[in-house]
Order: sequence, then C-alpha cells, then structure tokens
Amino acid sequence: MKVTFTLLIFLFAALTLNAENGHDLWLRAKHTAPVNVVCSGKSPTLEIAKQELHQGWQGKANATFVLKKKHDKLIKGDGYRLSPGGIEANTDLGLLYGVYDLLRRQQTGEPITEQVENPSYERRILDHWDNLDGTIERGYAGRSIFWHGKDSLAVTEKDKKLWQEYARADASIGINGAVLDNVNASPLVLTTEYLKRVRAIAEVLRPYGIKTYLSVNFASPSVIGGLKTSDPLDPQVKEWWKNKAKEIYKLIPDFGGFLVKANSEGQPGPQNFGRTHADGANTIADAVKPYGGIVMWRAFVYSANDEDRAKQAYDEFMPLDGKFHDNVIVQVKNGPVDFQPREPFSPLFGAMKKTPVMPELQVTQEYLGQAVHLVFLAPMWEEFLKSDTYQEGKGSTVARCTDGSIFQQTHTAIAGVANVGLDTNWCGHPFAQANWYAFGRLAWNNQLSSDQIADEWVKLTFKPTPAEDRTHSTVLPIVWNINFLKPVKRMMLESREAAVNYMMPLGLHHIFAPENHYGPGPWWAPKGVRKDWTPPYYHQADTLGIGFDRTENGSNAVSQYHEPLRSLFNDVNTCPEIYLLWFHHLPWNYQTQSGLTLWDDLCYHYQEGLDQVRSFQKTWDKAKPYVDKERFSVVQKKLRKQCINAQVWKDACLLYFQQFSRMPIPYNIERPVHNLKDLIENDMKRIR
Amino acid sequence: MKVTFTLLIFLFAALTLNAENGHDLWLRAKHTAPVNVVCSGKSPTLEIAKQELHQGWQGKANATFVLKKKHDKLIKGDGYRLSPGGIEANTDLGLLYGVYDLLRRQQTGEPITEQVENPSYERRILDHWDNLDGTIERGYAGRSIFWHGKDSLAVTEKDKKLWQEYARADASIGINGAVLDNVNASPLVLTTEYLKRVRAIAEVLRPYGIKTYLSVNFASPSVIGGLKTSDPLDPQVKEWWKNKAKEIYKLIPDFGGFLVKANSEGQPGPQNFGRTHADGANTIADAVKPYGGIVMWRAFVYSANDEDRAKQAYDEFMPLDGKFHDNVIVQVKNGPVDFQPREPFSPLFGAMKKTPVMPELQVTQEYLGQAVHLVFLAPMWEEFLKSDTYQEGKGSTVARCTDGSIFQQTHTAIAGVANVGLDTNWCGHPFAQANWYAFGRLAWNNQLSSDQIADEWVKLTFKPTPAEDRTHSTVLPIVWNINFLKPVKRMMLESREAAVNYMMPLGLHHIFAPENHYGPGPWWAPKGVRKDWTPPYYHQADTLGIGFDRTENGSNAVSQYHEPLRSLFNDVNTCPEIYLLWFHHLPWNYQTQSGLTLWDDLCYHYQEGLDQVRSFQKTWDKAKPYVDKERFSVVQKKLRKQCINAQVWKDACLLYFQQFSRMPIPYNIERPVHNLKDLIENDMKRIR
Repeated sequence: MKVTFTLLIFLFAALTLNAENGHDLWLRAKHTAPVNVVCSGKSPTLEIAKQELHQGWQGKANATFVLKKKHDKLIKGDGYRLSPGGIEANTDLGLLYGVYDLLRRQQTGEPITEQVENPSYERRILDHWDNLDGTIERGYAGRSIFWHGKDSLAVTEKDKKLWQEYARADASIGINGAVLDNVNASPLVLTTEYLKRVRAIAEVLRPYGIKTYLSVNFASPSVIGGLKTSDPLDPQVKEWWKNKAKEIYKLIPDFGGFLVKANSEGQPGPQNFGRTHADGANTIADAVKPYGGIVMWRAFVYSANDEDRAKQAYDEFMPLDGKFHDNVIVQVKNGPVDFQPREPFSPLFGAMKKTPVMPELQVTQEYLGQAVHLVFLAPMWEEFLKSDTYQEGKGSTVARCTDGSIFQQTHTAIAGVANVGLDTNWCGHPFAQANWYAFGRLAWNNQLSSDQIADEWVKLTFKPTPAEDRTHSTVLPIVWNINFLKPVKRMMLESREAAVNYMMPLGLHHIFAPENHYGPGPWWAPKGVRKDWTPPYYHQADTLGIGFDRTENGSNAVSQYHEPLRSLFNDVNTCPEIYLLWFHHLPWNYQTQSGLTLWDDLCYHYQEGLDQVRSFQKTWDKAKPYVDKERFSVVQKKLRKQCINAQVWKDACLLYFQQFSRMPIPYNIERPVHNLKDLIENDMKRIR
Repeated sequence: MKVTFTLLIFLFAALTLNAENGHDLWLRAKHTAPVNVVCSGKSPTLEIAKQELHQGWQGKANATFVLKKKHDKLIKGDGYRLSPGGIEANTDLGLLYGVYDLLRRQQTGEPITEQVENPSYERRILDHWDNLDGTIERGYAGRSIFWHGKDSLAVTEKDKKLWQEYARADASIGINGAVLDNVNASPLVLTTEYLKRVRAIAEVLRPYGIKTYLSVNFASPSVIGGLKTSDPLDPQVKEWWKNKAKEIYKLIPDFGGFLVKANSEGQPGPQNFGRTHADGANTIADAVKPYGGIVMWRAFVYSANDEDRAKQAYDEFMPLDGKFHDNVIVQVKNGPVDFQPREPFSPLFGAMKKTPVMPELQVTQEYLGQAVHLVFLAPMWEEFLKSDTYQEGKGSTVARCTDGSIFQQTHTAIAGVANVGLDTNWCGHPFAQANWYAFGRLAWNNQLSSDQIADEWVKLTFKPTPAEDRTHSTVLPIVWNINFLKPVKRMMLESREAAVNYMMPLGLHHIFAPENHYGPGPWWAPKGVRKDWTPPYYHQADTLGIGFDRTENGSNAVSQYHEPLRSLFNDVNTCPEIYLLWFHHLPWNYQTQSGLTLWDDLCYHYQEGLDQVRSFQKTWDKAKPYVDKERFSVVQKKLRKQCINAQVWKDACLLYFQQFSRMPIPYNIERPVHNLKDLIENDMKRIR
C-alpha cells in the first residue's frame, strides 16, 4: 500500500500538464507517429480526411492506411466500414467519418476490428438560436459565432477560421446540419444581404459535410416580400416562397431547408389566415422540394386557453397526421412541456404514424443550470430515446419510432439546440462540451450508452497526451483511469439525476424563476400573467397536496399515451415515481415507495441533490493532479456556485411548499439556511 | 415509547403560547397568587420591592413575607439575607435585590433556603457607547434609549417609561451603574443643557439603585470651557473640573463619576500636554472625590509604533502603578487586544498591585456576530474570570484580583459595554438578551457558572407561564425541561466555541473585515493603513506558517505574564492549543495534539464550527412547539444567516490561507462553496 502511494506521488510528478483554454474541445490529439495514407479519390472532404490522419495518427509508425470509396449495401448513407487497415464508404463524407472514428478509437484505446457503422438518422442537426444582432436566445457561452449584427455582414478571415473549427468539431462527431438562426426568426434573414453571408458560412461548412438550414418567419412574404398577406394558400405567397427557394439554392446548392416555429409564443403562422399547420408547412415544403430541401415544422405550440399545456401539441397535430407533404418533418421536443430536467416523452412520438417526426433536444442547458451547473445530458437523452411508446407493440422506443426502424419515412432527423458561442471554450462550462459531444454521438447512434459517451469524452478531453507523460510508462494510464476517469465519469453520469433532485424531483416541473429559467420560482404568479406561464400552474400545491392531476380524473393527458402506459401512468400505484407529480396530485402524507410521506420524501430528494453536488466538488478537487490548472480552476469555481445554487433550490422549494404541507422538514436533514422572504425578494429584484 | 410519544403530542397541544415581542426580557412572570408583604420602612426603592412581590409572587397563596432592614456584618454593601419567610438587608436596595432573587427562585424552581448573598463588585456598570445624536457605536439594536439628538433634549413620558423599564431590568440582575454616553465622548455632554437630561435620567434610575456616570472628553476644559489648554496640571484646568463636578453633583447628588478614554485611537489625553495617564486621571478624580465619585480610566491604548500591540497597555500602565489617586480605577479590557472571540487575559490583571483594576467586558457582540449570531458570552467571561494570573500565587484568578479578595482596594468595579437599543426586544437578537442577563449576574457573583446562568435565563425567558399551560399538570414542566431547556442550554453553552471555530480557531485573532468587524477579512491590508489595523499583522501567514510569535524569540509578550504562565505560553509544547497561534508562528505541517498537521487541524476547526451552527438550527427547529411563533421565527431566521455566515467564514479563511499553506483541504470535509475572489470583491464593495 505504501509502495503504491509512493508510486502514485511519483507518477503525479511525472505529468507536465499544459495550459488548456478548452478551445480544442475533444480534438486535442497531436501527431505522434507518421502514417502512409493511400487514397485515390480527390475532394475537399477527402483532403480533410487525409490531413486528420496525418495529424492524429496514433497507431503503428509508418503503417499504411487505405481510404476507399466502394459501393456496399451494408453501408447506409454516410456510414462506413472500419477495419484495422482502412476505411470503406459509399461517400467521401463516410470516409471522413470513418477517419474520425478511427482516431477516436486510437486515442481512447477502443478496439479497431472490422465493423460497419451506419448513422441512426439521416439528418443530424444543431439548431442555433442565434439572433442576427449577435445575441443568442438561451445562449450561455457568449455571442453568436455566425452573426455580429447588420453592420458586420462582411465575412472576415477570423470568422472563417472559427467556422472551420466549428465544422470540424461537428463533423468529428457526425453532425451534418446547422440551422444558423433563431427559431424566433427575423424575416430579414431571407433578404439578399444576409443570404450572402449564409452562402459564405455554407462554403466553409460544406467540405465537412455540414448542410446549412435557416429558421424562417412565416410572415416573411408580407414583411420583406411586400405582399399583402402571408396566407399559405394564396398563389402569390406560394410563388414568393418558390422564388425565394430558387434564390437560395442558386447561392447554396446543397442548402438543407427551413425550420419553422409558427403560431407559437407570438410567432405568426398559418392559423393567422385560417389555415392549418399542414397548409403552412406544405406551401414552404413545396418550394424547396425541387432541390431536395426539407421543412422542419415545430410542434411546440400551446394557446392561452384552459387546456393542460402538456396536451396541446398532441391535440393540435394528431388530426393533421397524413396531411403533410413528404418533405415535411414535424419537430417535437422530447417532452410535452419544455425541456424540463425530467419529463415523460411527448405522446406525439410513435403516435403520428403517417408523418415523419424528429426529436428536438436541448443541448444548451436552459433549464439545467445553464453554463454554471455541471449536468451531463446524455443520461436524460438516453432515458428519452429508450422510452417505450408501445405504439407498434412492445419495443417501440422513441428511438425506433423516429429513426425509420418502424415507420417508412422519406426523411429521418434529430435536432439539438446548440450550446455554442464565442467563448474561448465554445460552451461556457468545460463540461458543457460533453453535451455537444453527446448530442452528436447519439444522433449518429441512438443506441449508445451514456457511459460509453462519457468514457470517450473524458478520455479525449482530459487524458494527458503522450507528450505530457514524461514517464512514458504503462502505469500512468492505469493510475489515470482509476483516479481520474472513473470518478469523473461517475460524477457526470450522476449529475443529471442530482439536478433533478435539487431542482424538481418526483415529477415536479417548470417551477423556475421566470424569464431566465435559472433559479427557483415556485411562488411566481403575478396577476395578469398567463396561468400556464407561472409555476403554481405546474405544481398545483395547496394544503391538500401537490402535483398536476393528469389522470382520467384530471386533465386526462394520460389518454394521449398508448396502452399499457395510459393505465400505468393513470394509476398512482403503477406510475413510476420519477413522474409521480407530473401525473398525480397527491396528499402531503401520501406514502411513497420509500415508506416515507410524500413531504418527507420530497425533502430527502432535495437534500440528496445538494449532497450529490458536494460529492462532485470532492471528486473534482481530488482530480486536481491530473488536470491542467486552467480547466481545474474553472470547473472548481463553477462547482462551488452550483453547490450554492443547489442550497438555494432546496431551501426555496422546501420553505415555499412547507407553507402548504405544514409539516416539519425531517430533523435528520440539514436545515434551510435561507429565508423564503429574502429568496422571493431577490428574485423580484432580478426581474425588475 | 408509543404512550410517551402520544403524551408529548397531547402536551404540546396543551400549550397556548402567547405572542411575545421580547420586550419583557427575563421579567415575563405574571401575578399568580396573593401575598401579604410586611415592611415597615418607606422609600421609593421599597415601594418597588413591594410592588414586585405583589406582581410576581408565585409562592403559597396568602403567605406572609417580611422585608426588614437590619444591620448584619455578614451582609456586605447591598447584599441581603434570603430566607423562606423574608429578606433582611443593610439597605433598601439590598431588600429590592433580595426580592428579585426570591422571585427568580420561585420561577425557576431553585430552592429558597436561608442564605446570604453579597455582590462580588461594588460597582456593576453598563457602558453605553451612545452618541448624543442617538446613534450607538457598535450598537446593533437600534438607536439610543438615552439620546435623540440636540433638538430632542426635552424629556418625554415615553422616554421615562423606557428608562424605567431599563432600570428595572438592570436592577433585577444587580446592575447599579450606567455610563450614559460613548467613550469616544463629545465634550458637549458636560454642557448644562445635556446635564439637565442626565439629571432626568438619573431621577428615573435612582429608585432602582442605578447611579449615572458619564464618559468625558479630556479636552473638555478647552473645547467647552474656553480655556487655552486642557493640561491636567494647569491650575485653571483643575479648577474647571472642580467647578464642573460641583455643577453636576448639584443636579445629581448620587452621580457616579467619569469614564475616560484618553490618548487612544485619536482621543485627546494628558500625553498631548506631556503629562502621564496618572496626572490626567488624578486631576479629574480629585474633582469628584468630595462627592464620593470615581474615575474609570481606560487602559485601552496602543500607538502606531512597531511594538506588538498586545504589549502596549501593559508597557504604558505598569510604570504608573501606585501613582493613581484612590478613587481612580483603571479599566482594562478582558484581553490584551480588543474583545476578540478568544484572547488570553490581559497581563495587567493582578500585575497592577497598587492600583484598582476593573475588567471591561463587551456585552454587545462587536466581534461575535453582532445581533445576527447566537453567541452566549457567559462561557467566555467565565473562562476569563477563572483564568489564573499566578500574581499572588496559585489561585490568583482574574476574578479574585479584581473583586478585592486579594488586593486592598477602596473601590471594586466591573463594566460591560451594553447591547441595548430602541429595538422592541432591546438587544436585536432574542438570545442577545442572555448576554445582558449574564453580565449582570456575573457582576453580582463572579463565581457563577455559565450553566447556572443559562439555566436561569432560559427558564425566565421561555418557560410557559402557568396561564399558558392549560393542563396544569406536573408532567408538562418535565417535558419542557427535556425537550426545550436541555437542548437550548446545550446550544447556548456551545455557541461561543462554535463562533471561535468558524471565525478564528487555535488562537487566531482580529482577522475581521475592517470597520464593521462582522465578516472575515484576513486579506485586508491596503497601502497606507496602519499595520496594526490590518489582519495580516495578526495572523502573519506566509508560506512557512501562520501565527504571531509572542515568545521570547518574537515580541516577548509572554514576559508580561507571571510564571509559570510565562514559560507555559513560551513553550509550544505546553502552550494551550486555544492560544497556539496567539503566541506562536508555526509551520503549516506542525503536528497539533490531534495528530493532524496544523493546516488540517485548522480546516477541521472551521468545518466543526459550521457543523455546530447547523446543529443549532436543528435544536431550534425541534424546539418550535415550546416557543411563541414570533420569537421562534426571529431566531430561526437569524440562525439561517449565521449558518450562511459560518460557511463564508470557513471558505474565506481556508481559501485565503491555502494560498500560503499550499496544502489541500482534507477530502473528508466539505469543499468551499465560495470563490475567494468573489468574497474579497464583495468585501471591498461593502467598504467603498
């Protein structure tokens, strides 16, 4: 034991960790050995593939490695066949993807045996909620990398360098599309001066296989087109969209298509003209159809009526199933409300059988601590993708309902709302990079486990390079695996459940402070504000109990799920406790599976969340010898804030709900350290 | 067990706790039984004694109780002989004190057997640092009860009612003097218009046996007297003081005397004229001598030189021993620096053998969390009073060196800097009342234990009155004792050590944020500020270690202590660890008695302090059924702030000192949750 310890000390000292600003993401590998690349083809994409091999090869020195385009039925789309001696693919891009996979395996020590890798989705897209003035809606990593405002539309070399780096990062994890502007879209993006900048971006992204898309404002024909209407059935409007598509495709022949947020949260849409979502989507889809473009039409809609918000997307879109043209994909957020720390899957998945449906995930952590909290989202997405909808029998997971395994679809796609900005480290929090990485990996392979993704990312992002390891021993990697990889992975894999625990456990949802969606605000309900924009609408706490009754006796949202889920969710005895208060309003003294009262169980969950963050702090502090000073310090500081925040969440929610439960906080958990009044007042101050 | 629990529930329900704003302090007892008081004498004081008996009697109904003035050699000063059937005393005031003692015993259930009670000190004084404009230096409970500014010198009925309540509270615990104005004194207090208000105050205080004193500005003769100098040896100056004394005693025949802060922190003094402290004190003392007045001359002096500040009072005053006239008392703060959470006793105690020395304690918690932290000071004062100076052999405790047991003294006295203000509950924090109470009780009997004092205070302040106990059972008091008295007492008795732990353990001192002395500021050391006003002067942290070297190899402050203390403190192996860094600069890896390194031990102490505050929160939350809603809520909220503060203290000190120790915070204690930079910046913001 003593010997081992001495050895460890010695090995720590044998690391020379270089300064790291995080800009290189998971692509830190440096050239270590020469390689002989054989590749007969020529294209910008192939040039990149070759360059990456030369830059990053960590296999046998002077080995020969073959890149070969070859038609193979087992290979789909931009998939590839990887083997120790080379890569085969149907497309140049498939070869590039194979190269990134090979290099990743070399670095992480994964085996390189012969295998075919095909993408789960045809289109793997990042949605950038970037405004044309350079701000980013729900962006926490600085301003936009694409837009700097109307006076800076000229493209600079700095822009191009950054876009190229961005494209490389995307391509390395299989992302092949980018929506360049906010879903709350400015009509201006479709004007010629902005389209020219889009073309410039597309030119940089193209060699990396990334198609550009634009979010468009449904009222564009009238706002920038000078038409009297934007009615989608109006012949002039149809014509306008056709001409606009023509203009775009002339500039950008491989343009991906449009993303539309219509009749949602104040955005214009076909309903303004008495038309349906299908009418609206089809008109725009028809315009891009000749060029192979698609329209992603968002199902994120809810009106200010009394109907349970969680039911509205389903109610509005199900009647339209089969009415959409075949190049329309309905884009559905993972949950029925809005990117909460935990939601059941949206009942639209698997239910729209004649319409392609694509999941919209949120990579940027709007409701999960933004760029301050360390929350690894892969476990949340894995939970979602593996949820069984039962729509076509047992095993009809969300993944299989959307990737073409179950339904015949012309197109399959998945989107993630990006967390990328001008910050040096791209994402604000070093660990937020892992969410970008995880989205890309899951979009490529929706069966990947969170553990696998975390394993890869930690190794690629933090493992000392051979140059940093002065011992060049075989022991250091083992020491690193035990003392860094394992605990840091454990922290990441636990982090989302921790956030659920300290924010909104047991099925609670949307009890955030308004607007910024960062801290707690279960009390927030000013007069005159739409009820479904206030937390009390969601938690429904009163002296009798807490939770949103969505059973048959309540809003009957359970009816939107296929059996056996409908009955399972409807019955409090079979409803999974992670969704308990999502589906049920229960008395404070209801006995949970733990044997505790609901109130006590809630208290213990909040304490558990806080304790988990404290354990993350310890994990990270212990990891210090294995991390460069810069990233160690940034993460350490953010974890401290997360801990303070977790304490605020716990106190705010327990003290607020205690007013209704009128039950003591169990005496073997820590007492609140904040006063409710102060928390509410600070909240109000921030809003004003 | 089950039965007991049910019984407890039943008994909780049997309490009807009345609203309590805390204004009645420890004097909440209400009339419960009639009593027949026999008392032949007549005086305002005796009227009060009789009224208190009638109001508060809790003995046998219609019993006869005798108050009798009778000369008795065993009774000293205003002492008394208490017996079940009556009280005997040499003075009317002695009878009043006996009545308060009797009523306290009836309420707390202490036995009433025949016993003589004599005061430890002749003068038991509260020093009010109240400015004439109504503000209070180091006051945390609102503005002054005595002064409202120069435009409000007229005395109102409201003033008189409050002064009477104040006098009653003082008298009930044996306090017999009040200095009405700040030691940083305005010369104006000696002008006629202010003296008239002093007279009015004195008239209300007189029947309760409380003498009034004034702090005076040494430059008064020149500032308000129109003289060219305030040189104490100048005949005109002497004359001025004599005339001023004459004027005062004409207005207030029982005026107590003067308190003087001279040549200290910018205040004028005899040294301005080349005279000594003795010259200054004697001139003023001579003026009040004919009327029985005294001068309390403060030894709290230190200059901006390089000498260890802890040594300066001793160095300056020891040569003057024997030079003071016999109605001068030198007033010495308990520790050699300044009311810190923990200091060794000032070496002047017991060392000035020919001069009466009186302790100055601080009831207001300037350095102990002010009116936010729950810190019961009796254990600190008990530690101080029982400290053995060895000046006249073993057993020469500070108590015995100051109360006349060892030295022949014309006068004995003790002072406490008051924590009283206009707040409804007088002291800001409900538990701060316990410090006022404890000061009075220790001034009366300097052998009392903290446990005894806490026991009395908790019973008097919180015990449900018979009216509140609807069961009138014998069980409820037992339940109350177990579930409230015991845990709350334990919390109080532990609270000062907790504060030491989370603020400055192991002998650290004066590492406060500047000016307000509330939060941590170990880093604070701007250029141009006197070194001995900055925390680094006191903690001396560097990469080698931490602590102030006051050994023979350092400042040699140890030499001011009598053997064996001198050697004991000088040797790191025998120095008590509570004073370790007060006397020694030690390496970070020095091994403490715990077996830990000094750094680790420091970390554990800070964590222990935080954990203690958390345990206080639990204690108080559990006490809820036994306290009125108002006081429960106030204390609960303050404990939460204290917990937040303890965490700030811990993080600030550990993160700051870690910059020097360069050692990790032990991994089995909680990680810091603040960033040092933020703490320092907030600190700076507060100062600007």
